[in-house]
Amino acid sequence: MNIIDMLNKVKSGEMEIIEAEKLLKDLPYEDLGYAKLDHHRVLRSGFGETVFCQGKPDPYLVEIYKRFYDRDGEVLGTRASKEQFELVRSIVPEVQYDPISGILKVERPGKEKKGCIAVCTGGTADIPVAEEAAQTAEYFGCYVDRIYDVGVAGIHRLLSQRERIAKANCIIAVAGMEGALGTVIAGLAESPVIAVPTSVGYGASFHGLSALLTMLNSCANGISVVNIDNGYGAGYLATQINRLAVK
Amino acid sequence: MNIIDMLNKVKSGEMEIIEAEKLLKDLPYEDLGYAKLDHHRVLRSGFGETVFCQGKPDPYLVEIYKRFYDRDGEVLGTRASKEQFELVRSIVPEVQYDPISGILKVERPGKEKKGCIAVCTGGTADIPVAEEAAQTAEYFGCYVDRIYDVGVAGIHRLLSQRERIAKANCIIAVAGMEGALGTVIAGLAESPVIAVPTSVGYGASFHGLSALLTMLNSCANGISVVNIDNGYGAGYLATQINRLAVK
Amino acid sequence: MNIIDMLNKVKSGEMEIIEAEKLLKDLPYEDLGYAKLDHHRVLRSGFGETVFCQGKPDPYLVEIYKRFYDRDGEVLGTRASKEQFELVRSIVPEVQYDPISGILKVERPGKEKKGCIAVCTGGTADIPVAEEAAQTAEYFGCYVDRIYDVGVAGIHRLLSQRERIAKANCIIAVAGMEGALGTVIAGLAESPVIAVPTSVGYGASFHGLSALLTMLNSCANGISVVNIDNGYGAGYLATQINRLAVK
Amino acid sequence: MNIIDMLNKVKSGEMEIIEAEKLLKDLPYEDLGYAKLDHHRVLRSGFGETVFCQGKPDPYLVEIYKRFYDRDGEVLGTRASKEQFELVRSIVPEVQYDPISGILKVERPGKEKKGCIAVCTGGTADIPVAEEAAQTAEYFGCYVDRIYDVGVAGIHRLLSQRERIAKANCIIAVAGMEGALGTVIAGLAESPVIAVPTSVGYGASFHGLSALLTMLNSCANGISVVNIDNGYGAGYLATQINRLAVK
Amino acid sequence: MNIIDMLNKVKSGEMEIIEAEKLLKDLPYEDLGYAKLDHHRVLRSGFGETVFCQGKPDPYLVEIYKRFYDRDGEVLGTRASKEQFELVRSIVPEVQYDPISGILKVERPGKEKKGCIAVCTGGTADIPVAEEAAQTAEYFGCYVDRIYDVGVAGIHRLLSQRERIAKANCIIAVAGMEGALGTVIAGLAESPVIAVPTSVGYGASFHGLSALLTMLNSCANGISVVNIDNGYGAGYLATQINRLAVK
Amino acid sequence: MNIIDMLNKVKSGEMEIIEAEKLLKDLPYEDLGYAKLDHHRVLRSGFGETVFCQGKPDPYLVEIYKRFYDRDGEVLGTRASKEQFELVRSIVPEVQYDPISGILKVERPGKEKKGCIAVCTGGTADIPVAEEAAQTAEYFGCYVDRIYDVGVAGIHRLLSQRERIAKANCIIAVAGMEGALGTVIAGLAESPVIAVPTSVGYGASFHGLSALLTMLNSCANGISVVNIDNGYGAGYLATQINRLAVK
Amino acid sequence: MNIIDMLNKVKSGEMEIIEAEKLLKDLPYEDLGYAKLDHHRVLRSGFGETVFCQGKPDPYLVEIYKRFYDRDGEVLGTRASKEQFELVRSIVPEVQYDPISGILKVERPGKEKKGCIAVCTGGTADIPVAEEAAQTAEYFGCYVDRIYDVGVAGIHRLLSQRERIAKANCIIAVAGMEGALGTVIAGLAESPVIAVPTSVGYGASFHGLSALLTMLNSCANGISVVNIDNGYGAGYLATQINRLAVK
Amino acid sequence: MNIIDMLNKVKSGEMEIIEAEKLLKDLPYEDLGYAKLDHHRVLRSGFGETVFCQGKPDPYLVEIYKRFYDRDGEVLGTRASKEQFELVRSIVPEVQYDPISGILKVERPGKEKKGCIAVCTGGTADIPVAEEAAQTAEYFGCYVDRIYDVGVAGIHRLLSQRERIAKANCIIAVAGMEGALGTVIAGLAESPVIAVPTSVGYGASFHGLSALLTMLNSCANGISVVNIDNGYGAGYLATQINRLAVK
Repeated sequence: MNIIDMLNKVKSGEMEIIEAEKLLKDLPYEDLGYAKLDHHRVLRSGFGETVFCQGKPDPYLVEIYKRFYDRDGEVLGTRASKEQFELVRSIVPEVQYDPISGILKVERPGKEKKGCIAVCTGGTADIPVAEEAAQTAEYFGCYVDRIYDVGVAGIHRLLSQRERIAKANCIIAVAGMEGALGTVIAGLAESPVIAVPTSVGYGASFHGLSALLTMLNSCANGISVVNIDNGYGAGYLATQINRLAVK
Repeated sequence: MNIIDMLNKVKSGEMEIIEAEKLLKDLPYEDLGYAKLDHHRVLRSGFGETVFCQGKPDPYLVEIYKRFYDRDGEVLGTRASKEQFELVRSIVPEVQYDPISGILKVERPGKEKKGCIAVCTGGTADIPVAEEAAQTAEYFGCYVDRIYDVGVAGIHRLLSQRERIAKANCIIAVAGMEGALGTVIAGLAESPVIAVPTSVGYGASFHGLSALLTMLNSCANGISVVNIDNGYGAGYLATQINRLAVK
Repeated sequence: MNIIDMLNKVKSGEMEIIEAEKLLKDLPYEDLGYAKLDHHRVLRSGFGETVFCQGKPDPYLVEIYKRFYDRDGEVLGTRASKEQFELVRSIVPEVQYDPISGILKVERPGKEKKGCIAVCTGGTADIPVAEEAAQTAEYFGCYVDRIYDVGVAGIHRLLSQRERIAKANCIIAVAGMEGALGTVIAGLAESPVIAVPTSVGYGASFHGLSALLTMLNSCANGISVVNIDNGYGAGYLATQINRLAVK
Repeated sequence: MNIIDMLNKVKSGEMEIIEAEKLLKDLPYEDLGYAKLDHHRVLRSGFGETVFCQGKPDPYLVEIYKRFYDRDGEVLGTRASKEQFELVRSIVPEVQYDPISGILKVERPGKEKKGCIAVCTGGTADIPVAEEAAQTAEYFGCYVDRIYDVGVAGIHRLLSQRERIAKANCIIAVAGMEGALGTVIAGLAESPVIAVPTSVGYGASFHGLSALLTMLNSCANGISVVNIDNGYGAGYLATQINRLAVK
Repeated sequence: MNIIDMLNKVKSGEMEIIEAEKLLKDLPYEDLGYAKLDHHRVLRSGFGETVFCQGKPDPYLVEIYKRFYDRDGEVLGTRASKEQFELVRSIVPEVQYDPISGILKVERPGKEKKGCIAVCTGGTADIPVAEEAAQTAEYFGCYVDRIYDVGVAGIHRLLSQRERIAKANCIIAVAGMEGALGTVIAGLAESPVIAVPTSVGYGASFHGLSALLTMLNSCANGISVVNIDNGYGAGYLATQINRLAVK
Repeated sequence: MNIIDMLNKVKSGEMEIIEAEKLLKDLPYEDLGYAKLDHHRVLRSGFGETVFCQGKPDPYLVEIYKRFYDRDGEVLGTRASKEQFELVRSIVPEVQYDPISGILKVERPGKEKKGCIAVCTGGTADIPVAEEAAQTAEYFGCYVDRIYDVGVAGIHRLLSQRERIAKANCIIAVAGMEGALGTVIAGLAESPVIAVPTSVGYGASFHGLSALLTMLNSCANGISVVNIDNGYGAGYLATQINRLAVK
Repeated sequence: MNIIDMLNKVKSGEMEIIEAEKLLKDLPYEDLGYAKLDHHRVLRSGFGETVFCQGKPDPYLVEIYKRFYDRDGEVLGTRASKEQFELVRSIVPEVQYDPISGILKVERPGKEKKGCIAVCTGGTADIPVAEEAAQTAEYFGCYVDRIYDVGVAGIHRLLSQRERIAKANCIIAVAGMEGALGTVIAGLAESPVIAVPTSVGYGASFHGLSALLTMLNSCANGISVVNIDNGYGAGYLATQINRLAVK
Repeated sequence: MNIIDMLNKVKSGEMEIIEAEKLLKDLPYEDLGYAKLDHHRVLRSGFGETVFCQGKPDPYLVEIYKRFYDRDGEVLGTRASKEQFELVRSIVPEVQYDPISGILKVERPGKEKKGCIAVCTGGTADIPVAEEAAQTAEYFGCYVDRIYDVGVAGIHRLLSQRERIAKANCIIAVAGMEGALGTVIAGLAESPVIAVPTSVGYGASFHGLSALLTMLNSCANGISVVNIDNGYGAGYLATQINRLAVK
């Protein structure tokens, strides 16, 4: 019995919820041969699987996207190109695409956005990564406050936003080049800071290495780091923290 | 008027609490010339200043340690050597020292430990860093569950601890060499994972670089990274997250 | 006398096999000026020469491919582009091309596949490298069991494959990003594990460096590493090990 | 019931073998709190746990070493210092120490050495790592042929050893500095080659990085690499391969 | 004729100043065989030669120090150990030593200190490098304002010093770990900022590499960088800039 | 009230200058949502904001460029592509573009060029970076003397330019590959030298890393370094120094 | 008076050769503004200037190429693209282009080729760099013996060439990937070996870094290294050595 | 029969020269088990084997040194410590030790020094490496001209030595920190330049990496590079070149 059938039976009352939950908890994953889809992840962790689109061969992308859509009625895709958007739209017409962040999603309407996550950037060039983080957190049910272009080279821009920063349960600091934004924010705020180095820069930025090292060596307390340009990872982690706060 | 005087006046009733708080919020720091002590940090963030002992010249260490002790009645020192312990003990006799973690502290008795943070290590060699994290979190009022020597090369050791991991509000994963512990834990748990790479290893571990890169590139969701061997930073951040959960 | 003539004489009975073998063992290589083809390698090692197609100028590629084909009746080409496939097909019409792995081969039919090599991947993006390994081992006469998308971030997917892994004489673990797959498999299996880091990832994966370092620093026993994306090398080495086991 | 008791019962007939096996397979490890000893590993993989001595605190080292000794009657320790030898000898008087390789072992007498592993070095300075590999393989029951100081800068030294190399089921090539030994051997031999880069060298050898990269980029077929100076890992893996060949 | 004799003749009136200047301008250097002392540098650039003491063999150090002293009546030595101080003092009794900065100098009394250079540090551990810079600038005739322990993790400490920073003709920003101090200062100040990364830190600071990259990638305008821990170089360059301003 | 209105009122006499200055000093920046424009920077530092064009999305670029133009009547853009030039020209027809340096500017006519900055290059391939520096300094009101193709491999070319170098208040040394130009110039000159490593080169130049390290390790006094290819940063800093000299 | 005029006068007898030589020795270079052509280099060193074409703007390339051609009647260009060939041919119709090496030259006919330089490669992919070296040496008057595809993974191919190698005054060893060719040759030969690492390879070859480090760490005597892919530099240096031998 | 006996027989006429030569050419090396001594190297290449002392265990060092001494009557040891000197002297009393270069040698008296090699250093700290090079070349029969402390930061010191540089058949340029000496010399000289980077420096010199990269990226012609601090390798190679010139 496949998952759709089972869910249909639950919907129709043919199957008890408790029985279905058991089935799903036992079933480890659906095996497509080349991929193993973790359908019951949403039950276990409260987060659905996400599709990392970049570099996925077209047939794989379409099949995986469709499977998630059919099961959950919503899907979050990241790092999608415009071509991938066109491709998925031919199968899932209601899919939406944001060219700045590369988010390719179908989202159930009417989600309540709880708590507060602040997403800050050092400059305008960091916005694509920040949007990946912000939209991920929103997809998973968080309220997001965007505070962009507040890099430390003009410290007064950041200082004037102190109150908004103070209200967040978690702050995501997105910055490339010298990447000092996270440290200054962590010095101002009481909530945890997730620093996201970006590959913005040139020369000795070495594609984000400079910002990454800066953030890892922060003198401030309450700061941790994710991979270069990993907006999704920051948004996911911030969601976990925000959920703990609003529980 | 210096801080000690002011606190004495508060104690004696010469000064209203509300007046003292205002003074402290205005006063940015106490200036020793070579150092600027952030006395009101504890008011602002709920965490006191910590003394990073390693490499501090003896007179600086003693003076700074003493000042914090006199003001707060408790101090957390990290990365202290046995010699530094002897030195501080000659001035502050009640100081306690743990040679494994290098923690040098005076702690007010009777603190309640709230919530739950799990601290896991890949091997026994990672324990010094793990203890720095665990004792930091305990100092700041968290309950800590230690789960040591559960590296992924013998995955059954880790799997048998799933229930303890599931109970924590935040998990700290401490590992050197290939550093894969964080990824596997993040795949099992629903709470945020803070990964701490350690400098344990040899050859191509490059003093922790290998573990650091592994953790930054984790395929799992809900994981972030602090500096190599930065147990203190992980403990601090985990405390912030744990506090959000128990609020 | 060139090799084709000599082989024709052997076929026709004009030359004794023992005489031909002596000639071939003496002849170190055939000299094309720009390349020295190692025709007797197959006699010496039981493996024919393989053509690494990537970056070879067209005339060189065609001539070398044709020479091997004329002598052996089968050829294994690796890392071929679609353009190179078209080019070679114009000369050797029976050549076959797999666009995922880039394998460009003519293979004698009816080869018996002996023993067992398991080829595992962390994700779907590692499949091209895994297929290069798997098809290389099959070309050299091994039975291959493909176990794909079993990365350690969802450890239950891997654990459910323990029996298949246990049956292999040698396991190839292909993974990018944090590259921890090899360690977990080596902890589960008794056979040697060949770890292949892939350049899959972004940011601090540094084009496969992260996975490479992870694998080199594995805490598990019985694991060794080949170059980033070197599926062919892993397939060749696994074949050597598998042959020792089925001898 | 501890393991020794159980084994005694098996020996005396109080417990059926099949019952004991089940107990051992269920029991994942013995928990010392700071360490989890994998006692049934020897059942599962045919290899006992080894003690990596370097950096272990004295009380941990002694307790772990003693536990393994009490259970198995033999122990293999690696990277031990002379001080650690003295310490362990005070508890386990029959322990033996080789100052060149740092091997600290108690070995049951009369082991049969099967098959053949060749251990080659580029220079005399690589001998400590080579001995760690050779003695590991001997401890696990392999016959080892040592071929030392045959670096490629004087190629005739290596060529004169071709027959010995050809007889081995597996060859371990240990070299520092430019590390080309593995490639030349893999070109000569038909058996798998395990290359071990060493930290021997200075300047741009970067503590073994140069040899490591050389070996990873080998043009030869049938070669894989372990961590810098990881003689133990090479000896373990060579044993697995040799066992497959002599099965 | 050596330089001392010539200067004596000038003093006594035996030689015209204009004649002496010509001699000095022609004479490129004094050749000690192992070293070539640039005696007329002070004429050409307005700065005397400095002795970099670290790693100099004892006889070389003493001879070079003495030569400069005999000629100029003052000498600036940098990175001297306590042992080198004792050694030089046995020959030049009036030499003075600062153990924090390692400055070993004889300085002519009564120098006027002109203009203003601000020397800032992120933490107390950066003070040795900062003192090397500050004392170098003072030796060359600049007024120095020390602003220590104003790291960006507690931004209010730095902001409260804005007026002192604004008064300087040049600011030296000394910081290790994440090294963001220079950027924030350059955003506040109108004068050029010389950033000095220090090797203070651990783990992913990679002995100052992190701070170095941060400073090179600064988003702020008007900032340049010298070598890790190069306080002397920063002090020299700041002196050049300060002289231009007070000319 | 927006800035244009306010300036119009100043022009017309409706608003006192002193009142306007106050308003501008209070107003930290203009917030476009995705960007925060620092309009009063020119008041504070004497330099206007510059637009770093590379990688800016088209709508952002156009809006930001236009805003600065409307306010100041002149704009300096750097690293613009030909496509960006066409785009901006459609809105600001008087914009001028230099394809070698990528400078995209509108400049008020009749600026006086004061003082002297020498801009030197090692080779002709370094000219694009040198022009970015030179035109930046000219835009900010400095006289620039260009001394190109004077690399140290033909030292007589550089030596013949000593007098021009000696006249400058600040020298910018632009060089790729081995990057030694800065050191030789700093040895010849008395003014501060700003070294700009370029990404010119191949192989072990590692995109400018070689030149960067050379310059950071210079044995000469009075030299500092900016990021690889950062001509703008060097031109800005040189302007600050030149202004101090001509004050 | 320009150089052409002067040479014409020499040709016509209007100027004595000795007078012209003096003029040329005094004249340091010809200044084109953006470039300084070292016309008398050929007198001084016996080598003319070479044009490194890669990355030169079209007008610069054409003017520089033409100037050298007009003066010397022959020019050596390196790293030229096909487009640059077409461009130069429109001005200098007799120019010749080799697409494999990128050599773009006009060469005076009838040069005698003296001495002997052996140019060896590890594989066929190294031939472009080898040809740059070989053709450079031939242009400067050396006899070159090409020995290609003799990599150390099949050592018999190299050993069969020992006599040719032994005859050379200097050997150029060109190899990518693991780059061990130079070491083996230096062990066989008595003449100096110039090792040229190439960027051939993938993964952990890091664009030639692996081969570069191998060559720098060679255990053999009599070997030195030039930049990655620097065939020209090797050819030039080999010419200097060959000239010393045939003097 | 050992080599000394055989040579004695040749001297006495008991053995024909042609017979002895055959014996020596057949005998590849003398096998000590842990080392293979290349006794006939001196016949083949005109250079004896050298003993690299650093890190050799005492018994190995003494035996190898003694063997060479007994056979050849002279030995060149490099990188010896004072302790190793004492050790060897107890067996070979006539051994001589230079503490600056670490050369430990017995040299036959009355060697003629032919040709000319110039050895230059950038600073006094580079002298140990330079002496290793110089004394190696002298041991192998070359005349050496030492030109020390002529670094490019004071270019007049180097320029005044142009004539001495011009006379050499080969120039060795030894420099740390920014390592630009080789480039400037190669621009001045017509003979080949061997550049030796040294580990002299601090901070971003990264133990010689900076100087190494500078030298590899030299814009000058006629320059090649050996490993960091490899004075011996430079001296050996210079000897080969010098011999070609004086042949």
